Amino acid sequence: MKCCVIKEESSRAKSAITRSLRPIQSVEKEEKEEKGKMDYMNGPGRHHLFVPGPVNIPEQVIRAMNRNNEDYRSPAIPALTKTLLEDVKKIFKTTSGTPFMFPTTGTGAWESALTNTLSPGDRIVSFLIGQFSLLWIDQQKRLNFNVDVVESEWGQGANLQVLASKLSQDQNHSIKAICIVHNETATGVTNDISAVRTLLDHYKHPALLLVDGVSSICALDFRMDEWGVDVALTGSQKALSLPTGLGIVCASPKALEATKTSKSLKVFFDWNDYLKFYKLGTYWPYTPSIQLLYGLRAALDLIFEEGLDNVIARHARLGKATRLAVEAWGLKNCTQKEEWISNTVTAVVVPPNIDSTEIVKRAWKRYNLSLGLGLNKVAGKVFRIGHLGNLNELQLLGCLAGVEMILKDVGYPVVLGSGVAAASTYLQHHIPLIPSRI
Amino acid sequence: MKCCVIKEESSRAKSAITRSLRPIQSVEKEEKEEKGKMDYMNGPGRHHLFVPGPVNIPEQVIRAMNRNNEDYRSPAIPALTKTLLEDVKKIFKTTSGTPFMFPTTGTGAWESALTNTLSPGDRIVSFLIGQFSLLWIDQQKRLNFNVDVVESEWGQGANLQVLASKLSQDQNHSIKAICIVHNETATGVTNDISAVRTLLDHYKHPALLLVDGVSSICALDFRMDEWGVDVALTGSQKALSLPTGLGIVCASPKALEATKTSKSLKVFFDWNDYLKFYKLGTYWPYTPSIQLLYGLRAALDLIFEEGLDNVIARHARLGKATRLAVEAWGLKNCTQKEEWISNTVTAVVVPPNIDSTEIVKRAWKRYNLSLGLGLNKVAGKVFRIGHLGNLNELQLLGCLAGVEMILKDVGYPVVLGSGVAAASTYLQHHIPLIPSRI
Amino acid sequence: MKCCVIKEESSRAKSAITRSLRPIQSVEKEEKEEKGKMDYMNGPGRHHLFVPGPVNIPEQVIRAMNRNNEDYRSPAIPALTKTLLEDVKKIFKTTSGTPFMFPTTGTGAWESALTNTLSPGDRIVSFLIGQFSLLWIDQQKRLNFNVDVVESEWGQGANLQVLASKLSQDQNHSIKAICIVHNETATGVTNDISAVRTLLDHYKHPALLLVDGVSSICALDFRMDEWGVDVALTGSQKALSLPTGLGIVCASPKALEATKTSKSLKVFFDWNDYLKFYKLGTYWPYTPSIQLLYGLRAALDLIFEEGLDNVIARHARLGKATRLAVEAWGLKNCTQKEEWISNTVTAVVVPPNIDSTEIVKRAWKRYNLSLGLGLNKVAGKVFRIGHLGNLNELQLLGCLAGVEMILKDVGYPVVLGSGVAAASTYLQHHIPLIPSRI
Amino acid sequence: MKCCVIKEESSRAKSAITRSLRPIQSVEKEEKEEKGKMDYMNGPGRHHLFVPGPVNIPEQVIRAMNRNNEDYRSPAIPALTKTLLEDVKKIFKTTSGTPFMFPTTGTGAWESALTNTLSPGDRIVSFLIGQFSLLWIDQQKRLNFNVDVVESEWGQGANLQVLASKLSQDQNHSIKAICIVHNETATGVTNDISAVRTLLDHYKHPALLLVDGVSSICALDFRMDEWGVDVALTGSQKALSLPTGLGIVCASPKALEATKTSKSLKVFFDWNDYLKFYKLGTYWPYTPSIQLLYGLRAALDLIFEEGLDNVIARHARLGKATRLAVEAWGLKNCTQKEEWISNTVTAVVVPPNIDSTEIVKRAWKRYNLSLGLGLNKVAGKVFRIGHLGNLNELQLLGCLAGVEMILKDVGYPVVLGSGVAAASTYLQHHIPLIPSRI
Repeated sequence: MKCCVIKEESSRAKSAITRSLRPIQSVEKEEKEEKGKMDYMNGPGRHHLFVPGPVNIPEQVIRAMNRNNEDYRSPAIPALTKTLLEDVKKIFKTTSGTPFMFPTTGTGAWESALTNTLSPGDRIVSFLIGQFSLLWIDQQKRLNFNVDVVESEWGQGANLQVLASKLSQDQNHSIKAICIVHNETATGVTNDISAVRTLLDHYKHPALLLVDGVSSICALDFRMDEWGVDVALTGSQKALSLPTGLGIVCASPKALEATKTSKSLKVFFDWNDYLKFYKLGTYWPYTPSIQLLYGLRAALDLIFEEGLDNVIARHARLGKATRLAVEAWGLKNCTQKEEWISNTVTAVVVPPNIDSTEIVKRAWKRYNLSLGLGLNKVAGKVFRIGHLGNLNELQLLGCLAGVEMILKDVGYPVVLGSGVAAASTYLQHHIPLIPSRI
Repeated sequence: MKCCVIKEESSRAKSAITRSLRPIQSVEKEEKEEKGKMDYMNGPGRHHLFVPGPVNIPEQVIRAMNRNNEDYRSPAIPALTKTLLEDVKKIFKTTSGTPFMFPTTGTGAWESALTNTLSPGDRIVSFLIGQFSLLWIDQQKRLNFNVDVVESEWGQGANLQVLASKLSQDQNHSIKAICIVHNETATGVTNDISAVRTLLDHYKHPALLLVDGVSSICALDFRMDEWGVDVALTGSQKALSLPTGLGIVCASPKALEATKTSKSLKVFFDWNDYLKFYKLGTYWPYTPSIQLLYGLRAALDLIFEEGLDNVIARHARLGKATRLAVEAWGLKNCTQKEEWISNTVTAVVVPPNIDSTEIVKRAWKRYNLSLGLGLNKVAGKVFRIGHLGNLNELQLLGCLAGVEMILKDVGYPVVLGSGVAAASTYLQHHIPLIPSRI
Repeated sequence: MKCCVIKEESSRAKSAITRSLRPIQSVEKEEKEEKGKMDYMNGPGRHHLFVPGPVNIPEQVIRAMNRNNEDYRSPAIPALTKTLLEDVKKIFKTTSGTPFMFPTTGTGAWESALTNTLSPGDRIVSFLIGQFSLLWIDQQKRLNFNVDVVESEWGQGANLQVLASKLSQDQNHSIKAICIVHNETATGVTNDISAVRTLLDHYKHPALLLVDGVSSICALDFRMDEWGVDVALTGSQKALSLPTGLGIVCASPKALEATKTSKSLKVFFDWNDYLKFYKLGTYWPYTPSIQLLYGLRAALDLIFEEGLDNVIARHARLGKATRLAVEAWGLKNCTQKEEWISNTVTAVVVPPNIDSTEIVKRAWKRYNLSLGLGLNKVAGKVFRIGHLGNLNELQLLGCLAGVEMILKDVGYPVVLGSGVAAASTYLQHHIPLIPSRI
Repeated sequence: MKCCVIKEESSRAKSAITRSLRPIQSVEKEEKEEKGKMDYMNGPGRHHLFVPGPVNIPEQVIRAMNRNNEDYRSPAIPALTKTLLEDVKKIFKTTSGTPFMFPTTGTGAWESALTNTLSPGDRIVSFLIGQFSLLWIDQQKRLNFNVDVVESEWGQGANLQVLASKLSQDQNHSIKAICIVHNETATGVTNDISAVRTLLDHYKHPALLLVDGVSSICALDFRMDEWGVDVALTGSQKALSLPTGLGIVCASPKALEATKTSKSLKVFFDWNDYLKFYKLGTYWPYTPSIQLLYGLRAALDLIFEEGLDNVIARHARLGKATRLAVEAWGLKNCTQKEEWISNTVTAVVVPPNIDSTEIVKRAWKRYNLSLGLGLNKVAGKVFRIGHLGNLNELQLLGCLAGVEMILKDVGYPVVLGSGVAAASTYLQHHIPLIPSRI
């Protein structure tokens, strides 16, 4: 009877199997007219979300956000906000910094970091190593800063030797800020922020250090105070595992001081408006998202319950496991050297005869799996596995097993199971017991 | 036995009743040390949310938003976004406008309206009639526009005679834009936008017409195309009845044209970045909130199911009923003339011997009711009843009954039931059957 | 402009208003063909749920239940269950009782109470005072007990004089159990359980005392141990303010002892299966609803935070306020004497020329309000206002304002506002400050 | 920097790794005093739920259930119920059957099936092949039926030869019913129901055919009408992927006829009470769970959108993949012959030196994975992987990868990746495109 079941698959399903072995484009053409309905995300089982953001939201956080609006001027919201501002500093590892939780995205957080501390025409050094550093540089230029771009090949980290050289030559301190992306999400490259601080200190250079920690903070080791970061920022939909909507910016005392001389025009992104309301104890110059505040509370509670260092160690485990799988598949990591490897995202280089876009399409259409596309220079050449946020080992292994099948689908001669074997061999030695269940 | 129950009230409750008859300040002092816990919003029953934003979210919308993140580059999100951009135009009553859904608040939407169409130094005429027009003017000044402020007494609408005079004198068209708040949330004053258009047309003046529709669109009659509005904007947490997080801006073809000459610096708020992605069919230059998109879909579905004109008629009913209650209480509406009355918010003037702040505090502490504070010039002098968004008559009557008790609490000699009687006498004649249940 | 809005109401809405003044039946006929769609509950604003069960679920509890399934054999669920079994005893005011949380309804809880303690043929005395006591008696008969029915006129409480007489005559203790509904939901009548105990003690009669506390426990004063109740039971969708699905039964040591001789056949409802699993520490003989367990945890937390005695006092306030409104309307309470008045439900008698069913229909179709129908003997003659569970004063006043308008709709010459005035005059003197906000 | 991260793992995490290599019991002892808190389920990432019920609830269904209560006597709930009763028949593949949706569990559904169709003393033939058939037989005996038990070794299916023999000898039709579990969840054995029908027909025997389809209906091929099943039943928390709380029973016309002569006492479980309310069009003799009704609507919509036959084919795929993995691990399936293999649950036999309980414990404590315990006769000897309900291939592969690591943990010499490889090799050939995304 059970055997028949397979035979009895409806004709629609059968033809779907047949189609699954043909390239997807042609399938699309012939069936486009079937579509038109709204919510066509439905697929059996849980969706496997492995883009490097937005990432999976824990059930606890979804629950905490499942609520009506409230008056943000009632006593409850300031009391909640107060705890959030205190606790959010911990994920930046700062005690001296001042956090701002803007109702915006990472792009808005970038703009806030720049316009509060700098003036149009100011010279800044900025590292171009992939699509997101590129976009930030584009923003820096359009906001009329004088951007000194230090470019690396995509797959490499920031060229700090060039920085050293620029700093050594900048006797009159014309460089007002160094802008660097901690973790370039497009290529899976992590820069060494402490090394930037070492250089600045070495040359006794007063430039501000502005760091995009969008895909690093709360996942990679990040130490705002120890590394002398002046502005650090992240977005809620990354390692914090919330919906999009909070751009969290943390400013050092030196950065706050810099606002006094900044001539950039801004109102929405103005830190001083926030500081005014912090003093009043009402905290918000305009309406925050009530749901995101309660969500952030739950997200931070989960992170602190697990332990921030344990969270970072978990990301290190997941990153390592992913890289071992890629190696076992015989594929190359876009990250060119071990020193730059990223524990939040792995960009996998596909062989020249394969289009990585096809891999991402097939993941979604056949396996209910979302992978990251290759962007810009690496479009078609890499696909990306995001492994950040509230994620565990078995989720990752399911994803890796899926990637193996997709590779086979598109004609790459992978040994099915090989990546999972490599990853799980490592993981089986390193996964700790879940502290709350011991 | 039942009688005893009341006698048997725990000592805590009993002293709470006693305390409820004393002024709240003293109570606060003596018990401050009891507090410290986080979620001290809990009170029995549903919270009654009657601030003029954020407003009550319908259960259907809360449900639609109760979800995990998704990859916004998958086929699902662009397909969803496309329907939203089409449908959101309907609430502006425009077919020629182009909508932008920024992940921001109303304040961000304001900034977007200004910086995309104008250049620093541009002369604009702006009407100051209350706290929110004041804040917008503050933003206009800080963004370096040359603001020609036309001030009215708080409680009055925009002085259009002054505008007429300015337009008639502006032969060389130095005025680049007229900025006007459709509904001033602080005083409950609705301006006549069509009259502004009539004046501009009369003087054949090419100034752009920028309208803050934050507390009007989707609740009051608003006609972007008919009134020749160039930029209209609203926020998701107002009449759309969503969480905060979407600043929705709609631009006329003339406003889009103006972006070509605008020299204001902006990136996050740049319409042209959106237009680029609209053309690509991916729609988003940066990460949107997945949850708000699905929430907006559900919110629009509810509005269209009820019928936009029926929604507007419902707001007219609720506004009228509220004003009748205020009249029955013997209190004055902050709005000075019938022509300016607002159907989304009523600002109630309290007698000189009463502090309206005490009313708002008591509402929250004793009746689980959130009312709006008096702001700035009218602080202590008015309290506000928001009656916008997904709200019905019995909810409003519960609120009005609560306000009556609070007025009594603070020593105002109101006849309990008088406001409810006046409101329900009107409503009983005007409430339609619920279309979906006929 | 605002005036026009009302004129401009869409033709559909306009005809809805017209229709709202005609009897609903005719409307139904002419438009029946418009229907057919599924979710036709949508109406603007929150639904006002005032049936005496299922009642409003607090947002906190909805949130707690918003979750995936779990393995009920993992360590988490027994740990949770243990706290629930301990805490649920508090709402029965028992320390010696043993609680059982059946995945069933009140009807199932009734069956469990009877079949675990009695044998077919056993003589029981049962009071018929309304629809729910009638249904329980029907069950008792069909389960082959020998039921000695003591009937009262609907609107009166249990006739304890007849009980006294029966007990005095029952020298050989042929009566095995007294079955009594604490609060008859159909007529709004609360029986005096302590008086039953006094009689049993007076006659030194060993009969078991089985009490249906479905619409009383957690809302009315109920004292299992003090009153010597042998089996008490309630349902989750009543004063606990949860979804339907838990039938909570609490058994005295004497009731547990009675299971040893009971010859009634049962498996699903067998207490001894539960006791076996209690000993094992796994608690569940079969699969419980994970969501209801977490929901019950949240519901109990809310009740204990407010204070059970404060919860009972709140019900007393809401009941009193409702009765004062009914009196102000010039209508009669179905409850015939003050000693039987119910603080969880009020059955309002309508004048002979009015059909109470029309009132309930109109509440739903025009005011988004659910009222309770008159049942059986009082069908068409009473409608019921449930005021139990997680409910506050302003919610109730909104409901009362709605009832006034409906009374007017159906031709009863009520003075609009009169009931609200009477209720709020009382409430304004008795509402305590919300403890968590002082 | 990244390497250090691992070194920097907090001491708590480090000792957790160390502990993870020791047997769990000793760990438990030494740390028991750390516990005591409530919600100790929290672990990073999604929980992997692979018990054979309760199973994962799709996000769409969780969303649909995220709602307040409603009056079940309003027009909305009967309208909803009507569609459910129509549609639920489809999952039984019946047009002539009558469904009943009891607010109960599978155990209650069993009781309902028996007590509505049979009388105490009636002879029934019942097959004992594992824990759940054992429990049903226990219930049958305690309800005073005369049970003729046909026992098989655990791991084997129902012995139909014995049935044939009994039928052939039962000339006077003393056998009133055949009770059979379609899929024994404890051993992963699927019985051939059509063969039972063939035997009954062959011997022209009028016995009723009662089938427990708890872990089969909506997942395995089940044909109520074609196979002449008289009562079929399932529970909401199994393949329907809902919370526990609905026991769905479907009765053939012959079964309905049998209620007329049944002398078993029952009220809560009485079909005729339901039939009475079906005729009235109000459907419910007592309060249903509003949330489960809306959840069932969403669950059925998802199933019909995927296609019931596609759902069954998906279960066949997942079952086959699991068995291939078990084979690759060198372990035995508890199911002894191919003809009995189950596509909803696989019971894996562990080597004699391993305690399967330890595997289940470790899954939960280290891998956030719930596996099924071995029950009764196979306790300690098997662990079970449930693969039913709303589940997809990558979820299963994640689970299988986890099981491999656990096997290694407990000392079984598995080749990591071997099971995943075997499963994915099969799956990569058989997974269809997701119909809604083609």
